[in-house]
Amino acid sequence: MIVDNALYRNGERVDLGCSPGDLAAVRTGATKEHDFVWVGLHDPTSEELDHVAQLYGLHELAVEDALSAHQRPKVERYGDSLFIVLKTLWYVDEDDAVETGEISLFVGHGFIVSVRHGTGASLSQARQRLEASSKVLVHGPSAVVYAVVDDVVDRYESVAGSLQEDVDEVEESVFSTERTNDSARIYVLKRELAEMRRAVLPLREPMNRFAVGTVGGIHAEAAPYFRDVADHLTRVAETIDTLDSLLSSAFDAHLAQISIQQNDDMRRISAAVGLVAAPTLVAGIYGMNFDHMPELHWMYGYPMALGLMLLSSLTVFVISKRSGWL
Amino acid sequence: MIVDNALYRNGERVDLGCSPGDLAAVRTGATKEHDFVWVGLHDPTSEELDHVAQLYGLHELAVEDALSAHQRPKVERYGDSLFIVLKTLWYVDEDDAVETGEISLFVGHGFIVSVRHGTGASLSQARQRLEASSKVLVHGPSAVVYAVVDDVVDRYESVAGSLQEDVDEVEESVFSTERTNDSARIYVLKRELAEMRRAVLPLREPMNRFAVGTVGGIHAEAAPYFRDVADHLTRVAETIDTLDSLLSSAFDAHLAQISIQQNDDMRRISAAVGLVAAPTLVAGIYGMNFDHMPELHWMYGYPMALGLMLLSSLTVFVISKRSGWL
Amino acid sequence: MIVDNALYRNGERVDLGCSPGDLAAVRTGATKEHDFVWVGLHDPTSEELDHVAQLYGLHELAVEDALSAHQRPKVERYGDSLFIVLKTLWYVDEDDAVETGEISLFVGHGFIVSVRHGTGASLSQARQRLEASSKVLVHGPSAVVYAVVDDVVDRYESVAGSLQEDVDEVEESVFSTERTNDSARIYVLKRELAEMRRAVLPLREPMNRFAVGTVGGIHAEAAPYFRDVADHLTRVAETIDTLDSLLSSAFDAHLAQISIQQNDDMRRISAAVGLVAAPTLVAGIYGMNFDHMPELHWMYGYPMALGLMLLSSLTVFVISKRSGWL
Amino acid sequence: MIVDNALYRNGERVDLGCSPGDLAAVRTGATKEHDFVWVGLHDPTSEELDHVAQLYGLHELAVEDALSAHQRPKVERYGDSLFIVLKTLWYVDEDDAVETGEISLFVGHGFIVSVRHGTGASLSQARQRLEASSKVLVHGPSAVVYAVVDDVVDRYESVAGSLQEDVDEVEESVFSTERTNDSARIYVLKRELAEMRRAVLPLREPMNRFAVGTVGGIHAEAAPYFRDVADHLTRVAETIDTLDSLLSSAFDAHLAQISIQQNDDMRRISAAVGLVAAPTLVAGIYGMNFDHMPELHWMYGYPMALGLMLLSSLTVFVISKRSGWL
Amino acid sequence: MIVDNALYRNGERVDLGCSPGDLAAVRTGATKEHDFVWVGLHDPTSEELDHVAQLYGLHELAVEDALSAHQRPKVERYGDSLFIVLKTLWYVDEDDAVETGEISLFVGHGFIVSVRHGTGASLSQARQRLEASSKVLVHGPSAVVYAVVDDVVDRYESVAGSLQEDVDEVEESVFSTERTNDSARIYVLKRELAEMRRAVLPLREPMNRFAVGTVGGIHAEAAPYFRDVADHLTRVAETIDTLDSLLSSAFDAHLAQISIQQNDDMRRISAAVGLVAAPTLVAGIYGMNFDHMPELHWMYGYPMALGLMLLSSLTVFVISKRSGWL
Repeated sequence: MIVDNALYRNGERVDLGCSPGDLAAVRTGATKEHDFVWVGLHDPTSEELDHVAQLYGLHELAVEDALSAHQRPKVERYGDSLFIVLKTLWYVDEDDAVETGEISLFVGHGFIVSVRHGTGASLSQARQRLEASSKVLVHGPSAVVYAVVDDVVDRYESVAGSLQEDVDEVEESVFSTERTNDSARIYVLKRELAEMRRAVLPLREPMNRFAVGTVGGIHAEAAPYFRDVADHLTRVAETIDTLDSLLSSAFDAHLAQISIQQNDDMRRISAAVGLVAAPTLVAGIYGMNFDHMPELHWMYGYPMALGLMLLSSLTVFVISKRSGWL
Repeated sequence: MIVDNALYRNGERVDLGCSPGDLAAVRTGATKEHDFVWVGLHDPTSEELDHVAQLYGLHELAVEDALSAHQRPKVERYGDSLFIVLKTLWYVDEDDAVETGEISLFVGHGFIVSVRHGTGASLSQARQRLEASSKVLVHGPSAVVYAVVDDVVDRYESVAGSLQEDVDEVEESVFSTERTNDSARIYVLKRELAEMRRAVLPLREPMNRFAVGTVGGIHAEAAPYFRDVADHLTRVAETIDTLDSLLSSAFDAHLAQISIQQNDDMRRISAAVGLVAAPTLVAGIYGMNFDHMPELHWMYGYPMALGLMLLSSLTVFVISKRSGWL
Repeated sequence: MIVDNALYRNGERVDLGCSPGDLAAVRTGATKEHDFVWVGLHDPTSEELDHVAQLYGLHELAVEDALSAHQRPKVERYGDSLFIVLKTLWYVDEDDAVETGEISLFVGHGFIVSVRHGTGASLSQARQRLEASSKVLVHGPSAVVYAVVDDVVDRYESVAGSLQEDVDEVEESVFSTERTNDSARIYVLKRELAEMRRAVLPLREPMNRFAVGTVGGIHAEAAPYFRDVADHLTRVAETIDTLDSLLSSAFDAHLAQISIQQNDDMRRISAAVGLVAAPTLVAGIYGMNFDHMPELHWMYGYPMALGLMLLSSLTVFVISKRSGWL
Repeated sequence: MIVDNALYRNGERVDLGCSPGDLAAVRTGATKEHDFVWVGLHDPTSEELDHVAQLYGLHELAVEDALSAHQRPKVERYGDSLFIVLKTLWYVDEDDAVETGEISLFVGHGFIVSVRHGTGASLSQARQRLEASSKVLVHGPSAVVYAVVDDVVDRYESVAGSLQEDVDEVEESVFSTERTNDSARIYVLKRELAEMRRAVLPLREPMNRFAVGTVGGIHAEAAPYFRDVADHLTRVAETIDTLDSLLSSAFDAHLAQISIQQNDDMRRISAAVGLVAAPTLVAGIYGMNFDHMPELHWMYGYPMALGLMLLSSLTVFVISKRSGWL
Repeated sequence: MIVDNALYRNGERVDLGCSPGDLAAVRTGATKEHDFVWVGLHDPTSEELDHVAQLYGLHELAVEDALSAHQRPKVERYGDSLFIVLKTLWYVDEDDAVETGEISLFVGHGFIVSVRHGTGASLSQARQRLEASSKVLVHGPSAVVYAVVDDVVDRYESVAGSLQEDVDEVEESVFSTERTNDSARIYVLKRELAEMRRAVLPLREPMNRFAVGTVGGIHAEAAPYFRDVADHLTRVAETIDTLDSLLSSAFDAHLAQISIQQNDDMRRISAAVGLVAAPTLVAGIYGMNFDHMPELHWMYGYPMALGLMLLSSLTVFVISKRSGWL
């Protein structure tokens, strides 16, 4: 689907009087030197993408990559144009789950084509914000690249924040006095962190190159802004590493808690067994059939026996309590 | 065995009117400048390979390596020709197992010799596809190298996909409520990932060099295609790493599940012991031989005792239920 | 809040006769060549910081970073000025907890602006010490940077020392003969070490660059002093790594202790069960109803039976003691 | 002990008519330009080695290293001669153990001195093979270095193969249904792999340098052969890493198996306890002394009670079987 | 304390006729070109060190570092002099403990100042050995640096050897059939290895630089000797890594042993319970009060019952033995 398709001149959107779907018309509208077109596609069909590819001369390998959403993040140069793949991430509160999408950018002289896959991480806000600030937009495709990457990385930080909260919850659950089975939760969080890492890490190296300002097609003046993005990426990557290692520690602690609980249970059970075994022995004694057992003939022998049983149980109880077994 | 042996000129297979087994005839047929021969061998005998080696001047060390199937993937230069060793992988559904083979390529001026070991990963499809596209084939041996490597790496991705499914199954099994013994399955998967890693990792560095286009004997124009291959290799390598670390986490979770199950069993057992021990104590009490035990002479003493037993069992049962032990 | 704001000339604070809040007046007071102003802010409002930014021409991205306290440590160059972010750490004895703050420094020609976040790690002592030593202060902003960084890193060492003591306590607790549950403590310490690592590690690389003396805006003569700082950072980083790996080992040992205790308990419990089961069997024997059981008719049969019970218990007791089960 | 000492000229051994022990005579026999002497020592005394050292001008530090067998593998340059230390490994089938020795090579202009320690890994075969192939031997000391290193590395591969078999055995044992205690075996294998790693890893870097052909004293033409050696070393190193990580996984699986067995045992034991406890309760009931217990007076009360006991046991048995506890 | 203070000329100690405490006199005695003074201090007071510092123009930062004994090993350049910090290690047999000290060296033109902290690792032997070999001593301060460093590193190797023995003992203890609690011992050894690593690792890089012979103030001719030291350091570092990973494996094996022992104990206990439970059931049966129990009236009913009990116990015993539970 073609989401939007517009010509920008001197930092302003130009109304060409044709529908965004008329790709060729917008293309030919770019006649002045610093004009550029931003074509925005969402889950395009093979035909739509091929049409755009022909119009703007995109490389077949890049087009193939942009069509499906299973690429790894990368920045590749084809001749004098750049091909950028970004993973988008968003957190779905209902499922405590991280979902992923993909954005591909074709950046060439006088045009930028964005191809988005997945339901989340829409680019329309980024476009609106850009169109509202002609001072930035005047820098051409570089500005669009920055706006998109900044938007994507901001989402990473927000997802990292949500996962941080999840880890805090797990932590609390592990060290609560209740019996909890946190291993499944920890496993899922670890898997999500692994997925996130695969989105974030490959992007660091190209962003650092953008930050140095030596990548053709990216304005050198935009360097500090990309350095800011690279810095955010590093922060996200550090958070991921920290959370992952905290989860490992939490899992270890969880194992220890299970062992300690088993220990506690075992001792509690043993004490309970003692509570019954002691009076049972007493009952066994007075169930013996000796001719000469004076207690049997006492008037209060029976209550005495019951008392003895109680006393034996009580002794076990007190000892257990004192040694912390009950 | 000589599987195929053909002369290519201007992107077309040339019919020389001799059998593929007539190695010398095909060799001498290559008279024009961009002609090249592709000799395809499968599990060749030492004699077959020596014959080819003499005809095309292959280096003895490379020939020795190509004869057996226990090499590690590598790209080596001997004078002005290249020697490439690739591990082939395929997934056998019946056994949930990954099997391996090997392909060696000798790439020289005007010829390419492919030596394949193992039952899977046939190259005939790659050859047919190439012969069908003379536009690609016209680039000579480089095109064949790309076709073979691309074919091999595509199989890696498909194997990685199958292992991904296996890991998903293990995951499900670990967190199911049934008693499962997943450690053997996890172990086997880890071993297969290790084997896969040994096939994939050593190939990354030479593919990256091909992708830069500075390796003699490989067309610089083919660079973006090899970059695509390198990219796929990286994706496979990342998948392997992720799966491996997921399996480690799954194993840890498996251990935790075993401990928790043991805990649960122990408490269930203890409750069951209590169900029997309490009435046994009651029976013991009324088995005592005191002269003065009024209950013994009651008309309904016996049913009362039975009731008491039931009651004691019930008490234990209710307490166990409430505290979640049964 | 503007904490302090002063002009320094020839290593001496100049009394301009205006309040520190009069930013513009202090700014314009710097007329001589090596004059410089140090503006000290603490948790500034957006307006305060913007005012300073305008006056001294600070870059918007740096100002944005300095406003919130969630940056990672870094040294960035904007044109001919430096932007330095430091994490401050201090140990709160009551909670055995490490707390964090942040200091941002804008270092330019003729000025330094420090922005501090968090309650701890005040800079006033560092300023007083500097003002007391005009020999150092005469070196200008470099001297201030050194004073601040040195102060911050000294706190790192003191925090590392406190954590070292905590680890020693944990160690003692783990190997004490008492039952302890150290996993929560170990977890918290590991989390604090992770946080500390994030404060310390990113600073090493820029400090090493300062130590080489090639960073513009930092006096080459200050290099040995920054090398000293870098050396301290390395020491702190090594301590963190060592403590972290000691905690991992301590946790492992803790797990082993739990298992051994469970083993000990189980054997002790079993011995206790034996102490009761043996006499119960004896009681059961003499509770049988055979017509011909000579012992039943003995005068001292009953005491004999009690003696037998005691003897059986004693036998179990002695065996248990000898094999170390009790 | 001087094992052998010979002069080689044009790829042939020259018979000088003096005993190998006559070091000086052989030395002075080398008069032509490409002549070279190979002195082979085995566990030499300090005197023997000093004698050789004086004759050939070996450096005192290298001689000191060659005398004892506790060096790490290395290649060092002293002036215009090379000093090479290799660890030799062989597998002793009777003990399933890896044993180590050491070979030091002094390579100079016109001579090579080999010093071997340990009982295994004799060099006489390597020497015979070389003497049989004058085409190789004509390359001088380089050829000897290659022959020795190739021989040593071939042994590494064979040892790695033996350890691979051991790991396969351990694997089988871990996952067998029998109770096995594999941890000691795993530990020993890990220690042997560690030792092997110390022999193999330090050699990779110098072999790679030899393979590039830039090391003085080593023929550039020999480069492909040393590349072959480096390749084998890499293969061995990869095998070591794989085996080590498989052993770790096998150990983890072993732990899981122990836990699962304990679980199974516990449930089996509990079922067995139930088999006895249920009839004991029945016996207790009919051992009560109530006046009015009709069953006691039935003609077939006793068989009925026995039947009841059997029935209760059977019930426990069936339930246990069904839930998989027996 | 000033331990020694002497002037060396042409490789010989010069008797100046003044006490070593007369620092200035010895200083001024160095009048010839290659003269040099070696001042040896042990746990000096601040005053002593300041006096030396003034006399020889030592840098304040280096002096500060040398005063306390909590530095990390390093080699720093101050102007044209070197500052070297070494950690000394020695093994105290009585405690199986590694203790640490520190040696700082100030190496300048015509002098070397050594500052030693801690009770062990005296330098007097190194000085005597040097003074006995004027051939070495003639190289000036470089020779002293080598002598000290060599001495220190030799101690590392001896400590590593002692720890190796400790690890062997732990290994034996873990795999012995006795119940052992090795986790504390393993923990302590790991901590000592960590401490050792901190002494050894930072020294490798500067020693490698000395070995290349490009460090000003260190004779290029001494390079092979420092290469020897670097080699020893590498060997020690490898030993540390190997021991550390062996201890980890030993700890894992220890955990497995504990689990297996618990399993064995549990089964042994269960068998013992069975030995008593079976006859108790028999006793219970003949304790029932049925009117018609023929066995009760048999003459030999009682011995028969006892025999039955014994038989039931024996059956349990035999079954347990056969299945390996007892």
